[in-house]
Amino acid sequence: MFSPLIDELMSSLRCLPGVGPKSAQRMALHLLERNREGASRLSVALQAAVEGVGQCERCHTLTEQTLCGICTNQRRDDALLCVVETPADILAIEQAGTYQGKYFVLHGHLSPIDGIGPQDIGIEALLQLLQRESIREVILATNPTVEGEATAYYISERAKPLNVSVTRIAHGVPLGGELEFIDGGTLAHAFSSRRSL
Amino acid sequence: MFSPLIDELMSSLRCLPGVGPKSAQRMALHLLERNREGASRLSVALQAAVEGVGQCERCHTLTEQTLCGICTNQRRDDALLCVVETPADILAIEQAGTYQGKYFVLHGHLSPIDGIGPQDIGIEALLQLLQRESIREVILATNPTVEGEATAYYISERAKPLNVSVTRIAHGVPLGGELEFIDGGTLAHAFSSRRSL
Repeated sequence: MFSPLIDELMSSLRCLPGVGPKSAQRMALHLLERNREGASRLSVALQAAVEGVGQCERCHTLTEQTLCGICTNQRRDDALLCVVETPADILAIEQAGTYQGKYFVLHGHLSPIDGIGPQDIGIEALLQLLQRESIREVILATNPTVEGEATAYYISERAKPLNVSVTRIAHGVPLGGELEFIDGGTLAHAFSSRRSL
Repeated sequence: MFSPLIDELMSSLRCLPGVGPKSAQRMALHLLERNREGASRLSVALQAAVEGVGQCERCHTLTEQTLCGICTNQRRDDALLCVVETPADILAIEQAGTYQGKYFVLHGHLSPIDGIGPQDIGIEALLQLLQRESIREVILATNPTVEGEATAYYISERAKPLNVSVTRIAHGVPLGGELEFIDGGTLAHAFSSRRSL
């Protein structure tokens, strides 16, 4: 319907998560009609990020430096290591603002059905890091899904012989949540993990 | 929080309509973690479109050619001209599939309060086109907003001396719409524009 360059732009925009044909069309026409400067800037930023951004050597998060800002931060506790599935999880934890240790990013979870084993999510690198550095506690903050739980269990089994304390973040009813609207699985977990007051 | 290249990518993604900080973050991490190829392709497509896409000389729609595909299409009726506000409107009309004439894109509407006058939306070019080509009917398909109506009225007044029939698309209750949920303005218009059967 449109000319080849516009069609190609619309179809390329579909690579963005949550962008369907209608949104892609709206975005392409908006950029071409009203914000060509923004489109150029986005083009440059995409190319620079694709070429420049790799993984932090220590924690595997996304960064263009050899070591990321958190790994090189002297004010953070070296003896605490929080294991998460994605860099976005780090952001969520940082925004909560209470955790002062360091991180390790798996970039996924164990999933034998998809052929994703321990070496694919860097668990060997994690174990080497536990042996190399004097880490007191590993906090497993993988997602509370079947795969996330399996990944947490696998890491805890492998880390135990290394004389490191392994903990899992608590799961239960979220603050501000109303019991009426909480799913059964979460409620059952909240009951079985109850604490004495 | 993230490294400079990732922060710049997130902030550049905000130029897309409907993309806020959370979506931009999700998009940036998705591209870097799972679809670098798509990101490169998008970067190239953006640059190519920004550099290559201009306006069709005759109808002012977005295209990288001198004349767009519809203007050069011999099978379409040269004597019918539909005036729309944006290229997206052309797509909507084409998808309806009944109109076989040609188009003229204003890229906006008259809006004295924003300093947008007839010359800014190409009304002089439209009038020249009406004089140059043997056009039988001009169909005004600007949006049914105050500005769109004013633009349609202005064009009809200017086109009348040129001996061209000027029409406006019908406005009223949409097909499949239920009267109960139609706004008062549309209903009032539907009553005042009623036709005898």
